[in-house]
Amino acid sequence: MKNQSIPTPAVQRLSLYLRRLEELAQEGVQKVSSHDLAEYLHITAAQLRKDLAYFGQFGRPGVGYRVAPLIDELRHVLGTDRTWRVVVVGVGDLGRALLRYRGFRSKGFELVGAFDILTSKIGRQFGEVTVRHLDDLPAVVREHDVRLGVIATPSRAAQKVADILCEAGIRGILNFAPTTLQTPPDVAVGPVDLAATLEQLSFRVRANS
Amino acid sequence: MKNQSIPTPAVQRLSLYLRRLEELAQEGVQKVSSHDLAEYLHITAAQLRKDLAYFGQFGRPGVGYRVAPLIDELRHVLGTDRTWRVVVVGVGDLGRALLRYRGFRSKGFELVGAFDILTSKIGRQFGEVTVRHLDDLPAVVREHDVRLGVIATPSRAAQKVADILCEAGIRGILNFAPTTLQTPPDVAVGPVDLAATLEQLSFRVRANS
Repeated sequence: MKNQSIPTPAVQRLSLYLRRLEELAQEGVQKVSSHDLAEYLHITAAQLRKDLAYFGQFGRPGVGYRVAPLIDELRHVLGTDRTWRVVVVGVGDLGRALLRYRGFRSKGFELVGAFDILTSKIGRQFGEVTVRHLDDLPAVVREHDVRLGVIATPSRAAQKVADILCEAGIRGILNFAPTTLQTPPDVAVGPVDLAATLEQLSFRVRANS
Repeated sequence: MKNQSIPTPAVQRLSLYLRRLEELAQEGVQKVSSHDLAEYLHITAAQLRKDLAYFGQFGRPGVGYRVAPLIDELRHVLGTDRTWRVVVVGVGDLGRALLRYRGFRSKGFELVGAFDILTSKIGRQFGEVTVRHLDDLPAVVREHDVRLGVIATPSRAAQKVADILCEAGIRGILNFAPTTLQTPPDVAVGPVDLAATLEQLSFRVRANS
Protein backbone atom coordinates (compact mmCIF):
# COMPACT_ATOMS: atom_id res chain seq x y z
CA MET A 1 0.00 0.00 0.00
CA LYS A 2 1.57 3.25 -1.12
CA ASN A 3 -0.25 5.78 1.03
CA GLN A 4 1.63 8.69 -0.48
CA SER A 5 0.15 8.13 -3.93
CA ILE A 6 -3.50 8.00 -2.88
CA PRO A 7 -5.42 11.19 -3.71
CA THR A 8 -6.23 13.28 -0.64
CA PRO A 9 -9.96 13.48 -1.53
CA ALA A 10 -10.15 9.68 -1.51
CA VAL A 11 -8.65 9.61 1.98
CA GLN A 12 -11.09 12.33 3.06
CA ARG A 13 -13.99 10.27 1.77
CA LEU A 14 -12.78 7.28 3.80
CA SER A 15 -13.61 9.28 6.93
CA LEU A 16 -17.10 9.91 5.57
CA TYR A 17 -17.60 6.24 4.72
CA LEU A 18 -16.39 5.25 8.16
CA ARG A 19 -18.74 7.71 9.88
CA ARG A 20 -21.74 6.44 7.92
CA LEU A 21 -20.80 2.80 8.49
CA GLU A 22 -20.54 3.46 12.23
CA GLU A 23 -24.04 4.96 12.14
CA LEU A 24 -25.32 1.90 10.28
CA ALA A 25 -23.66 -0.41 12.83
CA GLN A 26 -25.37 1.50 15.64
CA GLU A 27 -28.69 1.00 13.85
CA GLY A 28 -27.99 -2.74 13.75
CA VAL A 29 -27.41 -2.89 9.99
CA GLN A 30 -25.00 -5.71 9.07
CA LYS A 31 -24.69 -5.37 5.29
CA VAL A 32 -24.83 -2.45 2.89
CA SER A 33 -24.57 -2.26 -0.90
CA SER A 34 -22.10 0.13 -2.49
CA HIS A 35 -25.11 1.78 -4.12
CA ASP A 36 -26.88 2.51 -0.82
CA LEU A 37 -23.73 3.65 0.97
CA ALA A 38 -22.78 5.94 -1.93
CA GLU A 39 -26.27 7.36 -2.36
CA TYR A 40 -26.37 8.42 1.26
CA LEU A 41 -23.17 10.38 0.77
CA HIS A 42 -24.23 11.93 -2.56
CA ILE A 43 -21.49 10.22 -4.56
CA THR A 44 -21.64 7.45 -7.19
CA ALA A 45 -21.21 3.78 -6.35
CA ALA A 46 -18.36 3.71 -8.90
CA GLN A 47 -16.53 6.43 -6.95
CA LEU A 48 -17.00 4.55 -3.70
CA ARG A 49 -15.68 1.30 -5.17
CA LYS A 50 -12.72 3.12 -6.74
CA ASP A 51 -11.85 4.80 -3.43
CA LEU A 52 -11.94 1.54 -1.51
CA ALA A 53 -9.94 -0.25 -4.22
CA TYR A 54 -6.91 1.90 -3.33
CA PHE A 55 -6.74 0.07 -0.03
CA GLY A 56 -7.68 -3.49 -0.85
CA GLN A 57 -10.44 -5.85 -1.86
CA PHE A 58 -13.63 -5.12 0.05
CA GLY A 59 -17.14 -6.44 -0.49
CA ARG A 60 -18.37 -8.89 -3.11
CA PRO A 61 -20.43 -8.22 -6.26
CA GLY A 62 -24.13 -8.68 -5.55
CA VAL A 63 -23.50 -9.07 -1.82
CA GLY A 64 -22.20 -5.64 -0.84
CA TYR A 65 -20.12 -4.84 2.19
CA ARG A 66 -20.32 -6.38 5.63
CA VAL A 67 -20.51 -3.35 7.89
CA ALA A 68 -18.46 -4.43 10.92
CA PRO A 69 -15.44 -5.83 9.00
CA LEU A 70 -15.38 -2.79 6.70
CA ILE A 71 -15.35 -0.50 9.76
CA ASP A 72 -12.36 -2.45 11.09
CA GLU A 73 -10.57 -2.23 7.76
CA LEU A 74 -11.16 1.52 7.38
CA ARG A 75 -9.98 2.16 10.94
CA HIS A 76 -6.86 0.20 10.14
CA VAL A 77 -6.25 2.16 6.94
CA LEU A 78 -6.80 5.49 8.68
CA GLY A 79 -4.59 4.46 11.59
CA THR A 80 -7.33 4.85 14.20
CA ASP A 81 -7.26 1.18 15.23
CA ARG A 82 -4.49 2.31 17.56
CA THR A 83 -4.62 5.10 20.13
CA TRP A 84 -3.02 8.42 19.19
CA ARG A 85 -2.09 10.70 22.04
CA VAL A 86 -2.78 14.35 21.36
CA VAL A 87 -1.88 17.66 23.00
CA VAL A 88 -3.82 20.89 22.54
CA VAL A 89 -2.14 24.30 22.68
CA GLY A 90 -4.35 27.31 23.34
CA VAL A 91 -7.24 27.05 25.77
CA GLY A 92 -9.66 29.71 24.50
CA ASP A 93 -13.24 28.88 23.50
CA LEU A 94 -12.07 26.68 20.67
CA GLY A 95 -9.44 24.86 22.72
CA ARG A 96 -12.03 24.20 25.43
CA ALA A 97 -14.51 22.95 22.84
CA LEU A 98 -11.87 20.50 21.61
CA LEU A 99 -10.93 19.38 25.13
CA ARG A 100 -14.57 18.66 25.96
CA TYR A 101 -15.42 17.11 22.59
CA ARG A 102 -16.41 13.51 23.26
CA GLY A 103 -15.95 12.37 19.67
CA PHE A 104 -12.15 12.16 19.82
CA ARG A 105 -11.74 9.32 22.28
CA SER A 106 -14.21 7.05 20.51
CA LYS A 107 -12.19 7.55 17.31
CA GLY A 108 -8.90 6.55 18.92
CA PHE A 109 -7.59 9.95 20.01
CA GLU A 110 -6.61 10.52 23.62
CA LEU A 111 -6.05 14.09 24.78
CA VAL A 112 -3.17 13.93 27.25
CA GLY A 113 -2.22 17.57 27.63
CA ALA A 114 -3.47 21.13 27.27
CA PHE A 115 -1.18 24.14 27.29
CA ASP A 116 -1.46 27.89 27.48
CA ILE A 117 0.74 30.79 28.57
CA LEU A 118 -1.85 32.74 30.60
CA THR A 119 -1.53 32.13 34.33
CA SER A 120 -5.31 32.58 34.67
CA LYS A 121 -5.79 29.41 32.62
CA ILE A 122 -3.02 27.24 34.02
CA GLY A 123 -4.28 24.69 36.53
CA ARG A 124 -7.85 24.72 35.23
CA GLN A 125 -9.37 21.38 34.30
CA PHE A 126 -11.31 20.65 31.09
CA GLY A 127 -12.54 17.16 30.44
CA GLU A 128 -9.83 14.94 31.90
CA VAL A 129 -6.99 17.33 31.24
CA THR A 130 -5.44 20.01 33.45
CA VAL A 131 -4.00 23.04 31.67
CA ARG A 132 -0.24 23.41 32.03
CA HIS A 133 2.23 26.08 30.98
CA LEU A 134 3.51 25.81 27.42
CA ASP A 135 7.02 25.39 28.83
CA ASP A 136 5.96 21.95 30.12
CA LEU A 137 4.97 20.73 26.66
CA PRO A 138 8.23 18.98 25.68
CA ALA A 139 8.24 16.96 28.91
CA VAL A 140 4.60 15.85 28.45
CA VAL A 141 5.20 14.92 24.79
CA ARG A 142 8.22 12.84 25.81
CA GLU A 143 6.52 11.22 28.79
CA HIS A 144 3.37 10.16 26.90
CA ASP A 145 5.02 9.55 23.51
CA VAL A 146 2.64 12.06 21.90
CA ARG A 147 2.61 12.24 18.08
CA LEU A 148 -0.17 14.72 17.31
CA GLY A 149 -0.62 18.35 18.35
CA VAL A 150 -3.52 20.74 17.91
CA ILE A 151 -2.94 24.50 17.61
CA ALA A 152 -5.94 26.51 18.84
CA THR A 153 -4.08 29.74 19.56
CA PRO A 154 -4.44 33.17 17.92
CA SER A 155 -2.71 33.41 14.51
CA ARG A 156 0.18 35.49 15.78
CA ALA A 157 1.26 32.69 18.15
CA ALA A 158 0.74 29.77 15.78
CA GLN A 159 4.16 29.58 14.11
CA LYS A 160 6.01 29.79 17.43
CA VAL A 161 3.82 27.03 18.85
CA ALA A 162 4.40 24.95 15.71
CA ASP A 163 8.16 25.33 16.19
CA ILE A 164 7.85 24.16 19.81
CA LEU A 165 5.69 21.18 18.78
CA CYS A 166 8.10 20.13 16.02
CA GLU A 167 11.11 20.54 18.32
CA ALA A 168 9.34 18.37 20.91
CA GLY A 169 8.97 15.55 18.36
CA ILE A 170 5.34 15.96 17.24
CA ARG A 171 4.73 14.34 13.82
CA GLY A 172 1.37 15.84 12.88
CA ILE A 173 -0.21 19.21 13.59
CA LEU A 174 -3.87 20.13 13.30
CA ASN A 175 -3.82 23.89 12.87
CA PHE A 176 -6.98 25.88 13.63
CA ALA A 177 -5.19 29.25 13.40
CA PRO A 178 -5.89 30.89 10.03
CA THR A 179 -2.25 31.13 9.04
CA THR A 180 0.13 29.03 6.98
CA LEU A 181 2.75 27.17 9.04
CA GLN A 182 6.34 26.48 8.09
CA THR A 183 7.27 23.01 9.30
CA PRO A 184 9.88 20.36 8.47
CA PRO A 185 8.85 18.08 5.56
CA ASP A 186 8.39 15.06 7.84
CA VAL A 187 5.72 16.84 9.92
CA ALA A 188 2.20 16.65 8.46
CA VAL A 189 0.04 19.74 8.87
CA GLY A 190 -3.73 19.63 8.61
CA PRO A 191 -5.06 23.15 8.30
CA VAL A 192 -8.59 23.60 9.67
CA ASP A 193 -9.48 27.10 8.55
CA LEU A 194 -12.95 27.81 9.89
CA ALA A 195 -13.42 30.83 7.63
CA ALA A 196 -12.30 28.72 4.66
CA THR A 197 -14.98 26.13 5.43
CA LEU A 198 -17.57 28.91 5.10
CA GLU A 199 -15.89 30.15 1.92
CA GLN A 200 -16.19 26.68 0.41
CA LEU A 201 -19.83 26.62 1.37
CA SER A 202 -20.55 30.05 -0.13
CA PHE A 203 -18.88 28.91 -3.36
CA ARG A 204 -21.19 25.91 -3.54
CA VAL A 205 -24.32 27.87 -2.61
CA ARG A 206 -23.54 30.34 -5.40
CA ALA A 207 -22.93 27.46 -7.82
CA ASN A 208 -26.31 25.96 -6.87
CA SER A 209 -28.31 29.14 -7.39
CA MET B 1 -17.69 29.48 -15.55
CA LYS B 2 -19.20 26.12 -14.71
CA ASN B 3 -18.67 25.94 -10.97
CA GLN B 4 -20.27 22.53 -10.74
CA SER B 5 -17.57 20.89 -12.88
CA ILE B 6 -14.58 22.23 -10.95
CA PRO B 7 -12.96 19.61 -8.71
CA THR B 8 -13.60 20.19 -5.00
CA PRO B 9 -9.88 20.00 -4.10
CA ALA B 10 -9.17 22.86 -6.54
CA VAL B 11 -11.81 24.99 -4.83
CA GLN B 12 -10.35 24.04 -1.44
CA ARG B 13 -6.91 25.14 -2.59
CA LEU B 14 -8.33 28.52 -3.66
CA SER B 15 -9.00 29.22 0.02
CA LEU B 16 -5.39 28.36 0.82
CA TYR B 17 -4.09 30.59 -2.00
CA LEU B 18 -6.31 33.41 -0.82
CA ARG B 19 -5.13 33.08 2.78
CA ARG B 20 -1.48 33.15 1.75
CA LEU B 21 -2.02 36.09 -0.62
CA GLU B 22 -3.71 38.02 2.19
CA GLU B 23 -0.68 37.36 4.40
CA LEU B 24 1.62 38.59 1.62
CA ALA B 25 -0.50 41.74 1.17
CA GLN B 26 -0.23 42.41 4.90
CA GLU B 27 3.55 42.08 4.60
CA GLY B 28 3.49 44.68 1.83
CA VAL B 29 4.34 42.22 -0.97
CA GLN B 30 2.86 43.36 -4.31
CA LYS B 31 3.89 40.58 -6.70
CA VAL B 32 4.48 36.86 -6.29
CA SER B 33 5.59 34.18 -8.75
CA SER B 34 3.55 31.00 -9.12
CA HIS B 35 6.67 29.16 -8.01
CA ASP B 36 7.00 31.07 -4.73
CA LEU B 37 3.28 30.92 -3.93
CA ALA B 38 3.14 27.19 -4.68
CA GLU B 39 6.30 26.37 -2.75
CA TYR B 40 4.92 27.99 0.36
CA LEU B 41 1.87 25.75 0.18
CA HIS B 42 3.84 22.56 -0.60
CA ILE B 43 2.31 22.09 -4.06
CA THR B 44 3.81 22.43 -7.55
CA ALA B 45 3.62 25.63 -9.59
CA ALA B 46 1.93 23.58 -12.33
CA GLN B 47 -0.84 22.59 -9.92
CA LEU B 48 -1.33 26.20 -8.87
CA ARG B 49 -1.53 27.44 -12.46
CA LYS B 50 -3.94 24.63 -13.37
CA ASP B 51 -6.21 25.44 -10.40
CA LEU B 52 -6.36 29.13 -11.26
CA ALA B 53 -6.97 28.38 -14.95
CA TYR B 54 -10.39 26.92 -14.03
CA PHE B 55 -11.50 30.41 -13.14
CA GLY B 56 -9.83 32.67 -15.69
CA GLN B 57 -6.56 34.11 -16.91
CA PHE B 58 -4.43 35.33 -14.01
CA GLY B 59 -0.82 36.48 -13.96
CA ARG B 60 1.66 36.72 -16.83
CA PRO B 61 4.58 34.45 -17.71
CA GLY B 62 7.79 35.81 -16.22
CA VAL B 63 5.92 38.46 -14.25
CA GLY B 64 3.86 36.38 -11.85
CA TYR B 65 0.75 37.48 -10.05
CA ARG B 66 -0.09 40.91 -8.73
CA VAL B 67 -1.17 40.19 -5.17
CA ALA B 68 -4.04 42.69 -4.64
CA PRO B 69 -5.90 42.01 -7.91
CA LEU B 70 -5.57 38.25 -7.45
CA ILE B 71 -7.03 38.55 -3.94
CA ASP B 72 -9.99 40.44 -5.43
CA GLU B 73 -10.47 37.81 -8.13
CA LEU B 74 -10.30 34.89 -5.71
CA ARG B 75 -12.79 36.56 -3.36
CA HIS B 76 -15.09 37.04 -6.32
CA VAL B 77 -14.76 33.40 -7.35
CA LEU B 78 -15.37 32.17 -3.80
CA GLY B 79 -18.31 34.54 -3.39
CA THR B 80 -16.79 36.36 -0.42
CA ASP B 81 -16.70 39.74 -2.18
CA ARG B 82 -20.26 40.06 -0.89
CA THR B 83 -21.47 39.68 2.68
CA TRP B 84 -23.07 36.39 3.67
CA ARG B 85 -25.28 36.44 6.71
CA VAL B 86 -24.93 33.41 8.92
CA VAL B 87 -26.86 31.91 11.84
CA VAL B 88 -25.37 29.51 14.38
CA VAL B 89 -27.45 26.85 16.11
CA GLY B 90 -26.10 25.39 19.35
CA VAL B 91 -24.28 27.60 21.83
CA GLY B 92 -22.00 25.16 23.62
CA ASP B 93 -18.20 25.62 23.72
CA LEU B 94 -17.93 25.21 19.97
CA GLY B 95 -20.84 27.53 19.17
CA ARG B 96 -19.34 30.15 21.47
CA ALA B 97 -15.95 29.76 19.82
CA LEU B 98 -17.56 30.36 16.44
CA LEU B 99 -19.54 33.38 17.68
CA ARG B 100 -16.38 34.97 19.07
CA TYR B 101 -14.16 34.03 16.15
CA ARG B 102 -12.98 37.28 14.57
CA GLY B 103 -11.92 35.69 11.30
CA PHE B 104 -15.45 35.39 9.88
CA ARG B 105 -16.31 39.04 9.45
CA SER B 106 -13.07 39.89 7.70
CA LYS B 107 -13.84 37.12 5.20
CA GLY B 108 -17.30 38.44 4.38
CA PHE B 109 -19.39 36.47 6.89
CA GLU B 110 -21.67 38.28 9.28
CA LEU B 111 -23.14 36.34 12.19
CA VAL B 112 -26.66 37.67 12.65
CA GLY B 113 -28.22 35.09 14.95
CA ALA B 114 -27.43 32.41 17.54
CA PHE B 115 -29.99 29.87 18.70
CA ASP B 116 -30.35 27.28 21.41
CA ILE B 117 -33.19 25.55 23.24
CA LEU B 118 -31.81 25.84 26.80
CA THR B 119 -33.36 28.71 28.73
CA SER B 120 -30.06 29.13 30.62
CA LYS B 121 -28.43 30.19 27.34
CA ILE B 122 -31.18 32.32 25.83
CA GLY B 123 -30.55 36.05 26.26
CA ARG B 124 -26.79 35.66 26.71
CA GLN B 125 -24.58 37.73 24.46
CA PHE B 126 -21.52 36.44 22.58
CA GLY B 127 -19.66 38.76 20.28
CA GLU B 128 -22.36 40.97 18.80
CA VAL B 129 -25.08 38.35 18.91
CA THR B 130 -27.69 37.61 21.57
CA VAL B 131 -28.81 33.99 21.87
CA ARG B 132 -32.48 33.41 21.00
CA HIS B 133 -34.75 30.39 21.18
CA LEU B 134 -34.61 28.05 18.19
CA ASP B 135 -38.29 28.79 17.57
CA ASP B 136 -37.29 32.33 16.52
CA LEU B 137 -34.93 31.08 13.79
CA PRO B 138 -37.32 31.25 10.81
CA ALA B 139 -38.21 34.87 11.59
CA VAL B 140 -34.54 35.90 11.88
CA VAL B 141 -33.62 34.09 8.65
CA ARG B 142 -36.46 35.86 6.84
CA GLU B 143 -35.75 39.26 8.35
CA HIS B 144 -32.02 39.26 7.54
CA ASP B 145 -32.20 37.24 4.31
CA VAL B 146 -29.79 34.66 5.78
CA ARG B 147 -28.41 32.02 3.39
CA LEU B 148 -25.93 30.09 5.55
CA GLY B 149 -26.41 28.17 8.78
CA VAL B 150 -23.93 26.51 11.14
CA ILE B 151 -24.89 23.47 13.20
CA ALA B 152 -22.88 23.24 16.44
CA THR B 153 -25.32 21.05 18.37
CA PRO B 154 -24.89 17.50 19.69
CA SER B 155 -25.28 14.84 16.99
CA ARG B 156 -28.70 13.72 18.16
CA ALA B 157 -30.17 17.18 17.46
CA ALA B 158 -28.39 17.83 14.16
CA GLN B 159 -30.92 16.37 11.71
CA LYS B 160 -33.84 18.14 13.34
CA VAL B 161 -31.95 21.44 13.25
CA ALA B 162 -31.04 20.82 9.60
CA ASP B 163 -34.75 20.31 8.80
CA ILE B 164 -35.59 23.61 10.52
CA LEU B 165 -32.80 25.43 8.66
CA CYS B 166 -33.87 24.04 5.26
CA GLU B 167 -37.52 24.82 5.96
CA ALA B 168 -36.52 28.39 6.86
CA GLY B 169 -34.85 28.82 3.47
CA ILE B 170 -31.17 28.33 4.30
CA ARG B 171 -29.12 27.35 1.21
CA GLY B 172 -25.90 26.13 2.81
CA ILE B 173 -25.20 24.32 6.08
CA LEU B 174 -21.86 23.97 7.83
CA ASN B 175 -22.29 20.91 10.02
CA PHE B 176 -19.94 20.39 12.99
CA ALA B 177 -21.99 17.50 14.41
CA PRO B 178 -20.35 14.18 13.52
CA THR B 179 -23.38 12.79 11.72
CA THR B 180 -24.55 12.65 8.10
CA LEU B 181 -27.43 15.01 7.29
CA GLN B 182 -30.30 14.37 4.89
CA THR B 183 -31.09 17.60 3.05
CA PRO B 184 -32.78 18.63 -0.20
CA PRO B 185 -30.45 18.54 -3.24
CA ASP B 186 -30.42 22.34 -3.56
CA VAL B 187 -28.99 22.78 -0.05
CA ALA B 188 -25.19 22.48 0.14
CA VAL B 189 -23.80 20.77 3.23
CA GLY B 190 -20.22 21.23 4.35
CA PRO B 191 -19.40 18.64 6.98
CA VAL B 192 -16.70 19.71 9.44
CA ASP B 193 -15.97 16.52 11.32
CA LEU B 194 -13.36 17.37 13.94
CA ALA B 195 -12.55 13.73 14.60
CA ALA B 196 -12.19 13.17 10.85
CA THR B 197 -9.62 15.96 10.63
CA LEU B 198 -7.53 14.08 13.19
CA GLU B 199 -8.11 10.81 11.29
CA GLN B 200 -6.78 12.43 8.12
CA LEU B 201 -3.77 13.63 10.05
CA SER B 202 -3.06 10.23 11.58
CA PHE B 203 -3.24 8.70 8.10
CA ARG B 204 -0.63 11.13 6.85
CA VAL B 205 1.63 10.73 9.89
CA ARG B 206 1.56 6.97 9.38
CA ALA B 207 2.28 7.43 5.67
CA ASN B 208 5.28 9.63 6.53
CA SER B 209 6.85 7.24 8.98
